[in-house]
This record gives sequence, C-alpha cells and structure tokens, in this order.
Amino acid sequence: PRKGILFRDITPILKDHALLERVVQGIGEQYKDKGIQGIAAIESRGFIFGVPLALQMRVPFLPIRKSGKLPCKTRYAEYKLEYGTDRVEMHEDAVAPKQKILIVDDLLATGGTAAASATLVESVGGVVAGCAFVVELGFLRGRENLRKYDLFSLVTYEK
Amino acid sequence: PRKGILFRDITPILKDHALLERVVQGIGEQYKDKGIQGIAAIESRGFIFGVPLALQMRVPFLPIRKSGKLPCKTRYAEYKLEYGTDRVEMHEDAVAPKQKILIVDDLLATGGTAAASATLVESVGGVVAGCAFVVELGFLRGRENLRKYDLFSLVTYEK
Repeated sequence: PRKGILFRDITPILKDHALLERVVQGIGEQYKDKGIQGIAAIESRGFIFGVPLALQMRVPFLPIRKSGKLPCKTRYAEYKLEYGTDRVEMHEDAVAPKQKILIVDDLLATGGTAAASATLVESVGGVVAGCAFVVELGFLRGRENLRKYDLFSLVTYEK
Repeated sequence: PRKGILFRDITPILKDHALLERVVQGIGEQYKDKGIQGIAAIESRGFIFGVPLALQMRVPFLPIRKSGKLPCKTRYAEYKLEYGTDRVEMHEDAVAPKQKILIVDDLLATGGTAAASATLVESVGGVVAGCAFVVELGFLRGRENLRKYDLFSLVTYEK
C-alpha cells in the first residue's frame, strides 16, 4: 500500500469464515476436473487462499517465497519492479516431473509475479495447469503476461 | 535460514495434505472448548496453519503482518532482533472489544515475535486466549517470554 497505488483490501473476506470458504470453493469448482496435482501459492497473501484450496482438493501445497526464505536448495525466477528486479523461489525438489500445478494468488495486477512463478514451476519440472486469482485488476492487463496459461479470476475490476 | 541458525523445515508437512490436515486438527482439538472467537496468525508461515484452523473452527482470520504491508490504519508492536528491532502490525479495527483470540505460528523459537503479537492483539482490544505453535524449540526457552498466556505446541524439540 503506497500513495498512488490502487489497493483492494482482502481482510474483510478473512473476517467472514463462510465467505472465505466460498471464495476457496469458487476456485476449487473451476479446477475440480482438471487433474490438479498440487497448489503453488505466492507468499504471503497467496498462502491464505492456496492452503485451504490444497486441503479441499487433497493435493500438496507448495510455497513460492520471496528471496532467501526457504531452507533447502532453491531455484528462482526474476520479475521486474519499478526500479530493479526481485525474485520468487521454490525448493528445487518441490514438484515431481510433470506434476500438474495450479498457481494461486490473491490479486492479479500487472502479472509480473505470477508470470515469474509460472516460469519457476516449469523450471523445477512441473506443468502449469492454471493460474487462479481471487481478484483481477483487468485494466492493468496482467492477463497479457500470462497468455500461455489457463487463467481464472473470481472477481474482475475493470477500473 | 542462515548458517548457525537451527532450522526445522515445515515444507514436507505441506506436501502431505492428510498430515497438514492432522496438524491443523491437532491444534483445533486443543482449543475446541475454549470459546475462541478469532485466529490471528503471523506472516507468512503462520498463515499456512492459521487459515485452515480458522475455517475449521468457523471463526474470523486476522492477519498479523510485518511492517507496512496492511492497507488500512494499523497498530504495531515491536520485537528485538540481534541488531535493532522489527515490528508486527494489525488493522486497528481488526478485533472486536474483548474478542477471544488464538495466536498461531509455525515455530516457537525465542518467542519475541509471538510476545509482540500478543501485546498487539491486546492493544487493539482483544483478549489472548492462547498461543499455539506447530513446533517448539524448547531449548530456546521462548515459553518464558509468553508466561502470561496459555501456550500449546504440537511438537517440542529439546535440543
């Protein structure tokens, strides 16, 4: 949250357990017949939706974390910031070869983090079966950074 | 994860959805008759256990985040690092007056972050009904920083 940066606050969803459950089920419904074999979610708000989704779908949960936070051997993928770059990391043995992974995050903005996360899942041997978001800021065209992938968002704001 | 810092890796738990479910249920069992009205978990690994616990207990989930990450008006509490201090934050309207809150994190080490989180929950008007951890590193005596509170850990390492 910075001045001039549009922000959608998800904490009201979290205060209402029935609503949070419905949000998770809404994503789960969309992917229930897609053979998903793992949920990879992006630290830290992605964890909020990714963990209950993994439990609901009965598949492994694979954390994607910011630089230097995972304890074992990692791989990384970079994404651009306004100035410079940052990276996302996963354990190099996080996924099995060709394991079908659904990437989950709370918000699709410019899509930089999600695109890097998809590249990362592929670099550790997984297949990106989809990228799912609770909220999509359509006017930021993040979708264009993720054209290669199945993309789903529960709610889209067009302005 | 730094050289000389002992580390317990929780990612194997996350890969096994049935085990993750049991870990969450193990904490839930302990607090099922304690009148818990909200789960506050500490970013970001606390989210992994706190969110499914909140859903299981059908209570609100209240994120405790590191400095500058929450969008609305916040309060903070400080904790000591080896050099300097850091802070945890919550929305100032996160809890209702006297709402009974269970604080959840993956690991109890020295207890600094958890103690600051408990102070924070109280400063926004809540009552700390307990502090629950998946793993406790008993030899670091974090328990001594949390003497005022009901404390539970699923697994304790004594060395």
